[in-house]
Amino acid sequence: MDTSNGTNDKIRIAVDAMGGDFFPKNEILGAILALKEKGDKLEITLVGNENLIRDFLQKQSYVNKELKVVHAEEVINMHDVPSETYKTKPKSSLSVALDLQKDKKLDALISTGNTGAVLANSILKLGRIKGVGRPTIGSLFPTDSGETMVFDVGASVDCKPTHLLEFAVMGSVYMNHVFNIEKPKVGLLSVGEEKSKGSELSIETFRLLEKSNLNFIGNVEGGDILRGKTDVIVCDGFVGNIILKFTESVLDLLKSKFKQYADKGFFKKIWIGMMNKTLRVVIKDFDYQGYGGVHLLGINGVTIIGHGKSTPLAIKNMIFRGEEVVRKKVNEQIKRVLSENN
Amino acid sequence: MDTSNGTNDKIRIAVDAMGGDFFPKNEILGAILALKEKGDKLEITLVGNENLIRDFLQKQSYVNKELKVVHAEEVINMHDVPSETYKTKPKSSLSVALDLQKDKKLDALISTGNTGAVLANSILKLGRIKGVGRPTIGSLFPTDSGETMVFDVGASVDCKPTHLLEFAVMGSVYMNHVFNIEKPKVGLLSVGEEKSKGSELSIETFRLLEKSNLNFIGNVEGGDILRGKTDVIVCDGFVGNIILKFTESVLDLLKSKFKQYADKGFFKKIWIGMMNKTLRVVIKDFDYQGYGGVHLLGINGVTIIGHGKSTPLAIKNMIFRGEEVVRKKVNEQIKRVLSENN
Repeated sequence: MDTSNGTNDKIRIAVDAMGGDFFPKNEILGAILALKEKGDKLEITLVGNENLIRDFLQKQSYVNKELKVVHAEEVINMHDVPSETYKTKPKSSLSVALDLQKDKKLDALISTGNTGAVLANSILKLGRIKGVGRPTIGSLFPTDSGETMVFDVGASVDCKPTHLLEFAVMGSVYMNHVFNIEKPKVGLLSVGEEKSKGSELSIETFRLLEKSNLNFIGNVEGGDILRGKTDVIVCDGFVGNIILKFTESVLDLLKSKFKQYADKGFFKKIWIGMMNKTLRVVIKDFDYQGYGGVHLLGINGVTIIGHGKSTPLAIKNMIFRGEEVVRKKVNEQIKRVLSENN
Repeated sequence: MDTSNGTNDKIRIAVDAMGGDFFPKNEILGAILALKEKGDKLEITLVGNENLIRDFLQKQSYVNKELKVVHAEEVINMHDVPSETYKTKPKSSLSVALDLQKDKKLDALISTGNTGAVLANSILKLGRIKGVGRPTIGSLFPTDSGETMVFDVGASVDCKPTHLLEFAVMGSVYMNHVFNIEKPKVGLLSVGEEKSKGSELSIETFRLLEKSNLNFIGNVEGGDILRGKTDVIVCDGFVGNIILKFTESVLDLLKSKFKQYADKGFFKKIWIGMMNKTLRVVIKDFDYQGYGGVHLLGINGVTIIGHGKSTPLAIKNMIFRGEEVVRKKVNEQIKRVLSENN
């Protein structure tokens, strides 16, 4: 295997074939979609139960030398304690894929497995970037004028002010290099706009952000997340995770309310089809599939994490995101900006 | 003035006439609406600039001996630091109204003024119920099957586990006596369902709730808030406030997205009217107006806080809520249940 990952080389992506709710089907179909579109730029390794994967591949009658298979004996399942799988399942697809990345034989990992397991295995196998106390995952939220990314949404629950500063650095680099935003506007999630408002954590973090060389615009409130004032919003993973899951449920409730009112005859049933179609168009912006998963920032390597329900399209987009992150050397940029803010 | 507030007496409500965005108009119209509907059960005192209030009252040609006016010289405005108004504006409508309550000449206060100012004045004037470390305000969220109330949504930002236990006690009493729910189901907001999941604060709070005599159902996640699993959800005021404000903005974004797609001609414009009408029906459940404001729980007295944009209808409902809380002796119940859980 070639061990370089320069701009013109093929990027070598591992796909955890045993992660998602529909494994290995969606993982394999996603990998095939990716290679059909960008076969000249990618090399994909499906990691998991080799027999299962080859059986499924055969049915697809898809042959491509850039699609490789590496066997992994163990499968992480719902009975495992995610954070302990690093120890309890050393031969899982996650573990095998990350070992290959650690040995520089692969450049990035795509997984739709249990988030806690992906986080723990990635952080423990690959280690943290020097200067990063806590790795982070962000999630994109649609806004009136585009989108904003909230860090952290669940990788790091109890945070110190320095951790939130690191999230702001990593988030800024990510939005700058991956989303091509010149000077990403960073907001600190709090309960008031004034510097003096907030929790002990947020007030102390404000002081650090103020002194940083980031484009810090100050505190933002819960109501500002979707209002397009920022490109990056930082908060601890407890708050971020609750908001992320809450968001998904708001849309579920709206759909269910629409249906309830329809059943009650509040408006003619014939309109419901139209209504649902419209709602679907409108909430498409909240859809994780187009975003290509979330990047675990702050580790010495590249891990992209996706929803267990990821479709082949979502997995294809995750693969492309992984490729982009490697090609743009996001980790090198993080190291540079971190060193400027320490 | 009669100083009793027994079940058959009229409940004596103070309305802060200088609080809302449209003062004193909506406050006065709300008070009139309340008296027209329940004049036999209420006595209302409008507190604020007497000339302004009497001028407006005269234009309404409404005369009712149960509608009184008490003058207050000062008005709290946007240049005041809310938490300091207790000291800087000792003759504000808030301050005057709370002094009357402290002296047992009134039973409850309704205010749509700055929340921070209402909180600080109420807590400092009336004091906390014995055993309550932090007063709390809750907010109702609609669910598939009814509604759930989240405590705290902004009164207490940095909390200890004992504070969250107190919120659970006060929230349970409130949902039991005001919403007539037999054994309110209490959930602890966290980032995982397991007992071991969450922040240091939530994990320690879990232990306290488990030992309490409340109907504690365990951790709930952000996605469970709207799913009808609980009657009461507890979290610190930092998280709760962010979720509350976020919720309002989701609906704003949806409305704006509907409009954008309509303008782009994604579907025929003639449908838009229908669509908006439907959306309005659907999101009515999120509307604060029907809920009659939020009750500041944990103080030696009754304060109901409303949105600055409250309509006369909303203010009327706040007055009714105040009456109910006094009549049902909610504070006595809180003292009782707190003593059982200490």
